[in-house]
Amino acid sequence: MKAFQANLPVTLDFEAGAIRHMGEKVEPFGKKVFLMVDPFLQGSDLVAQITSSFAEHDIEYLEFYDIVPNPRHTTIDRAVELVREAGCDVVVAVGGGSAIDSAKAVALVAVHGGYCWDYTERLGEVVTRPQSRGLPLLVVPTTSGTGTEATPFAVINNPELGLKCAIVNPFIYPDVALVDPQILVSKPARLTALTAVDTFCHSLEAYISIHCTPWVEMVALESIRLFATDAQRCVEHGDDVEARARMAFASTLGGMAIASAGVTVSHALGQPLGAMTDAPHGGTVAASTPYVIGWTLPVCADKFARVAEILDPSTQSLTEMERAQRLPGILEKLFTTLGVTDTFRSYGLQEHQIDDFAQTVWTSFNQDLACHPKKITSKEEVADIIRMCF
Amino acid sequence: MKAFQANLPVTLDFEAGAIRHMGEKVEPFGKKVFLMVDPFLQGSDLVAQITSSFAEHDIEYLEFYDIVPNPRHTTIDRAVELVREAGCDVVVAVGGGSAIDSAKAVALVAVHGGYCWDYTERLGEVVTRPQSRGLPLLVVPTTSGTGTEATPFAVINNPELGLKCAIVNPFIYPDVALVDPQILVSKPARLTALTAVDTFCHSLEAYISIHCTPWVEMVALESIRLFATDAQRCVEHGDDVEARARMAFASTLGGMAIASAGVTVSHALGQPLGAMTDAPHGGTVAASTPYVIGWTLPVCADKFARVAEILDPSTQSLTEMERAQRLPGILEKLFTTLGVTDTFRSYGLQEHQIDDFAQTVWTSFNQDLACHPKKITSKEEVADIIRMCF
Ligand SMILES: NC(=O)c1ccc[n+]([C@@H]2O[C@H](COP(=O)([O-])OP(=O)(O)OC[C@H]3O[C@@H](n4cnc5c(N)ncnc54)[C@H](O)[C@@H]3O)[C@@H](O)[C@H]2O)c1
Ligand SMILES: NC(=O)c1ccc[n+]([C@@H]2O[C@H](COP(=O)([O-])OP(=O)(O)OC[C@H]3O[C@@H](n4cnc5c(N)ncnc54)[C@H](O)[C@@H]3O)[C@@H](O)[C@H]2O)c1
Ligand SMILES: [Fe+2]
Ligand SMILES: [Fe+2]
Repeated sequence: MKAFQANLPVTLDFEAGAIRHMGEKVEPFGKKVFLMVDPFLQGSDLVAQITSSFAEHDIEYLEFYDIVPNPRHTTIDRAVELVREAGCDVVVAVGGGSAIDSAKAVALVAVHGGYCWDYTERLGEVVTRPQSRGLPLLVVPTTSGTGTEATPFAVINNPELGLKCAIVNPFIYPDVALVDPQILVSKPARLTALTAVDTFCHSLEAYISIHCTPWVEMVALESIRLFATDAQRCVEHGDDVEARARMAFASTLGGMAIASAGVTVSHALGQPLGAMTDAPHGGTVAASTPYVIGWTLPVCADKFARVAEILDPSTQSLTEMERAQRLPGILEKLFTTLGVTDTFRSYGLQEHQIDDFAQTVWTSFNQDLACHPKKITSKEEVADIIRMCF
Repeated sequence: MKAFQANLPVTLDFEAGAIRHMGEKVEPFGKKVFLMVDPFLQGSDLVAQITSSFAEHDIEYLEFYDIVPNPRHTTIDRAVELVREAGCDVVVAVGGGSAIDSAKAVALVAVHGGYCWDYTERLGEVVTRPQSRGLPLLVVPTTSGTGTEATPFAVINNPELGLKCAIVNPFIYPDVALVDPQILVSKPARLTALTAVDTFCHSLEAYISIHCTPWVEMVALESIRLFATDAQRCVEHGDDVEARARMAFASTLGGMAIASAGVTVSHALGQPLGAMTDAPHGGTVAASTPYVIGWTLPVCADKFARVAEILDPSTQSLTEMERAQRLPGILEKLFTTLGVTDTFRSYGLQEHQIDDFAQTVWTSFNQDLACHPKKITSKEEVADIIRMCF
């Protein structure tokens, strides 16, 4: 057994209807909340429930709705200013990965100062890496996808540079992740599908990562099992709270998996593609996954076989290699059933951009490439992989 | 999905040979160590490695070896005095569950004062329950059994009262659990077997507990899978570091499982039996397990069936009920293979003690009984169960 570490510094709190007790949950952490809410919720009953629960507990709050998918560094910096001016002592985020990542960055930068972009990992640049926590942070995911509630990452988009980079810091974990499956029932089918495949890719990529550990194997495979039983159900019967709860747990487990083992090639390609095209994150990573598996197959057939068997138990009677070879096909079919069929090309990537794209992946996502079980040794090889996925 | 919470506040650090870097691991936590070492290690090369690693990092230490199985409250109180007199600012424990539980209690009481027995949960008594952490604590398990490195419990024996009770407090988790499978290779076969069945019982009891959650299910079943593949290997080939590592991980997962879901009837009986007879903990819980399963069968056949299938895949073709019914037999055979065959009677329990024993279980282990999936409504019922296991 290789050496490994594991922990889960965030308290996961799964509870249907928990949102109504938000004041009680926040009370131990602070008296004045910076409340960052995904704009799709502006004016909703849900926000009213939260704010009236704050009022019941004499908790002040300042609302902030200026969040866009693939969150911008400039917005985060503006939010930090508001937090400091208002003297907020706790951050609460309700929303998708973009809202939660924004809040993770805000909570950290509000205490440690400066600009959020300087905190992101960029090869060869000076990076601000605080050694202590930011403001207390409670998050409520409204998508089941990123698992960001259980990761030490916050992905930030810098459109001026055309780059999406991540803060990677153990002190950025939320204190509490309140997962309320009741909130998830209204999530549209398309978003449900896109975020579910993101979860699957996290678990698969962490599982095949060279940093996979017995801990990661446990959480990643459990996540994949839950994805297999519940993703489609969530897309087709959005009001099934039980299926939503299980898919939410799958998402959190996927976050735990990448927190320990990182992501691999599909995310290394998907992240910058998201920055270039503003395409939805889940779609950008799903687009390359079947091809990447085919290309990687020789070096980890055993793992692909195990995943194939979970997704399609009828493959049980096949040999390991046969099962592994089935995986790309199984996934293409499954992604199609879920309605996730976009390609690099359909997201607007043009042939003449491939070299620049490969350059960005090579320089800015080298960490992710380095986790991949099959070695990638040059930016030309990255370009070949992109062409293969095109 | 029922509401549930999950976290893992301890950092698990699995690494063969890690013990040699003990100084480095302790450095962030303190400068003067209270080093509690299981007496079987006194004068060993292992202790020399630890203390010389301390020396390299200019860390002072005070050694303490006065630990017995089923640790005494009086010893813990004496250790607390030594810690305070010497001004130690961090506790390190190396040993079995008894050494680590002692250290957990010492670290807490050294900061919060008083006597350790007052911190234990006793029905109807005044209990000291601190709301903040004790001294920093690093633990190195030398048995794979209790999983105490990943629980908020410390079990303490009070021979004067004939009671074994537990401190239950989230602030008692170690900061770091250093699991070094290399240390485990010298563990004698009998102790290996006894502690392995303790792990199995933790995972099984937490899995069937009424407080089982999707989190507990994941960790408990993974623990049982590892027990199934590696327990016997560890007993028969003690020097197989890989098997030792997997069994150590199983033990930690078992601890995580009971940390969330508690234990049930077998531990409710085993703990006081250990206090009455000083019998090894693993043996006392294993003794009743097949009978308790048989008695509980009607209310959770599905779970027993799943465990039976993990332990004996040849049962796969049977119906769920048939599989569940096989479990007691599968376990009796497995425990016998491992050499764990003691009974309540062979541990010295006498027929005329049963009523007193039942009384103790009923008053002091009511919490555990309350976790059991089949309701137990009187001390007479407890006596019946004891007689059944006799
Ligand atoms: N930090 C991490 O560990 C991590 C991991 C993976 C991805 N990410 C990042 O997370 C972001 C993606 O997050 P995401 O996939 O959750 O999407 P998102 O947060 O970008 O949201 C996408 C859109 O859906 C809307 N939305 C969110 N929840 C909704 C709901 N319940 N009902 C209706 N509309 C809803 C949002 O307003 C937004 O318009 C990307 O920036 C990605 O890079 C972070
Ligand atoms: N806190 C918890 O969560 C929790 C859970 C279950 C059990 N427990 C408690 O833990 C105690 C049992 O712990 P245990 O089963 O680890 O046994 P133990 O610590 O009582 O040790 C048993 C004997 O084995 C010796 N020993 C330990 N490691 C050895 C090794 N590697 N080689 C040779 N000898 C070794 C010890 O010196 C001792 O004599 C009981 O008091 C039980 O109630 C606590
Ligand atoms: Fe992702
Ligand atoms: Fe135990």
